[in-house]
Amino acid sequence: MSSAEQSLIELCLKHQTLQRSDVWCHSGDDAAGMSPRSGEGIVTTVDAQIEGTHFDKRFTAQAIGHRSLAVSLSDIAAMGAQPCWAMASLSLPIDDSKWLSEWSQGFIRLAEQYDIECVGGNLSKGARAIHTTLIGQVNPTHALHQHTAQMGDDIYITGTLGASAWALNHPLGASSIEQSAYQQWQYPNPPVNFAQAAAPWIHACLDISDGLIEDLTRLLKRSLCAATIDLDACPYHPVLNTLSSQEAINAALLGGEVYELCFTAPQSHASMLKDLAQQHQCQLSLIGEIQPGSGLYWQQGSRRPIPQGAAFEHFKSN
Amino acid sequence: MSSAEQSLIELCLKHQTLQRSDVWCHSGDDAAGMSPRSGEGIVTTVDAQIEGTHFDKRFTAQAIGHRSLAVSLSDIAAMGAQPCWAMASLSLPIDDSKWLSEWSQGFIRLAEQYDIECVGGNLSKGARAIHTTLIGQVNPTHALHQHTAQMGDDIYITGTLGASAWALNHPLGASSIEQSAYQQWQYPNPPVNFAQAAAPWIHACLDISDGLIEDLTRLLKRSLCAATIDLDACPYHPVLNTLSSQEAINAALLGGEVYELCFTAPQSHASMLKDLAQQHQCQLSLIGEIQPGSGLYWQQGSRRPIPQGAAFEHFKSN
Repeated sequence: MSSAEQSLIELCLKHQTLQRSDVWCHSGDDAAGMSPRSGEGIVTTVDAQIEGTHFDKRFTAQAIGHRSLAVSLSDIAAMGAQPCWAMASLSLPIDDSKWLSEWSQGFIRLAEQYDIECVGGNLSKGARAIHTTLIGQVNPTHALHQHTAQMGDDIYITGTLGASAWALNHPLGASSIEQSAYQQWQYPNPPVNFAQAAAPWIHACLDISDGLIEDLTRLLKRSLCAATIDLDACPYHPVLNTLSSQEAINAALLGGEVYELCFTAPQSHASMLKDLAQQHQCQLSLIGEIQPGSGLYWQQGSRRPIPQGAAFEHFKSN
Repeated sequence: MSSAEQSLIELCLKHQTLQRSDVWCHSGDDAAGMSPRSGEGIVTTVDAQIEGTHFDKRFTAQAIGHRSLAVSLSDIAAMGAQPCWAMASLSLPIDDSKWLSEWSQGFIRLAEQYDIECVGGNLSKGARAIHTTLIGQVNPTHALHQHTAQMGDDIYITGTLGASAWALNHPLGASSIEQSAYQQWQYPNPPVNFAQAAAPWIHACLDISDGLIEDLTRLLKRSLCAATIDLDACPYHPVLNTLSSQEAINAALLGGEVYELCFTAPQSHASMLKDLAQQHQCQLSLIGEIQPGSGLYWQQGSRRPIPQGAAFEHFKSN
């Protein structure tokens, strides 16, 4: 660990008041040391935020810090796990301690919201980018997977769709709806607590960061089943009302950077899930059903099924 | 996890024959899942390899793959821990599957040498860079630290010094010594097995990736003690014979990118450590002694102590 890395860690720790009791080597040695709960498994994910690819000049350093962690949080949430320990590996073109300090404020504020300790860091010279590792804990028998959807399951998604897709292509105006869309894009907040609480009642789960169609299609392939989605039941972000109906559907269904979850659950658990969502202030929408066969089907109004492949191309071409 | 990430993981897994029995979610879900050994702690580190900063055109993709893991291996070795699970987050300017395949061959070959499973990956568009997370296991009471050197301890280093510093500034010639220096620079192989075997006989340990002076000085500050190093006992790589005496000392003592260990141990363990080094084919050099006070002192020939600060400046100015 070089002096530069030391400074980063010290900078991060300056903003960090949290020290988890299961961390026995907080920083300073070559690696951090933690003691997972006896009998539990650990889950790990890594995700990147790269200037020009994932964020642009419209992002403050704080927003980038928040987002650097949030994108990994949704992966841990999708496993029904509790996020515990984070590490950030940054590259920066110049030694910019002001930027780094603001970045770490955004990162640490979100981390502490979920009792996550930042246990390590790395800083190198290079194009501006942040690669975040997040480690969580979960009982392996209770972890959520993508291949475990069952026939007749309801299909739910959390949050709303399309805000990031809209924000990517539109400047921020003065309206509170536009501000809400920008907030969701720049400060995503995956439903971590809801996912842990709801995990026992869920069959299959994944995050929809690549867009609902791409991710739900993956879940269906893994679970060897089909699904039909009701387009009228999808939770469109209100900012999409400014677009044509076709553009809105494109943004909502194909747009990525949605750090929310899509999951399936037996119909008998519907009221329990509704209650848990209310307790955790999580917007929850029942959008479809798991069916025998393969492929993703859509219905709207007349409830006419549209083959997924064609729908996808149709949305794309508009 | 996007389609691009999927391809990366599939590419890596194509080269990976190893599946650890403690991994219960190998890949495909949003995060990987593992079960650490009961009662053991986990140690985690992240390190980066960035084009233009850590490697250049002289590196093949395979060498970069090897190095991407090796730089994190030395951190886990320095904790006396067993490396177990790795994740790589890459950014690449173009979708270059040939490069990626060669890269992963280098990464996976080294991983399998140490029974490490690559459990996750991420691929984004951006300047060529690799951020590697490595997680190991160790009993927390047996983990090695930097602050635990004791008065009278011997100071050891593994491997040789100066090969990377030389290679950074010299083209590769035809001699086997130059090839050996390039090999150490491009394919570092930290003494992972030796470190685990020797851990019970070691007091304090760290890797010397930032150079012997910088890293040993950090160990001394953390352990609240001083040390004197015998310059004639330091293991100079033979390629340094082509340099002036002063240049050779600079390269050996200040040069970074040395993925070897520096550790301290009681004099009574000297023969045990020597035996273990031999068993693990690890070059081991006794280079000095921990003493009361503070600071790093040097002696050579006349054994005249030179204050560390002055020595450092002296080396730097030459």
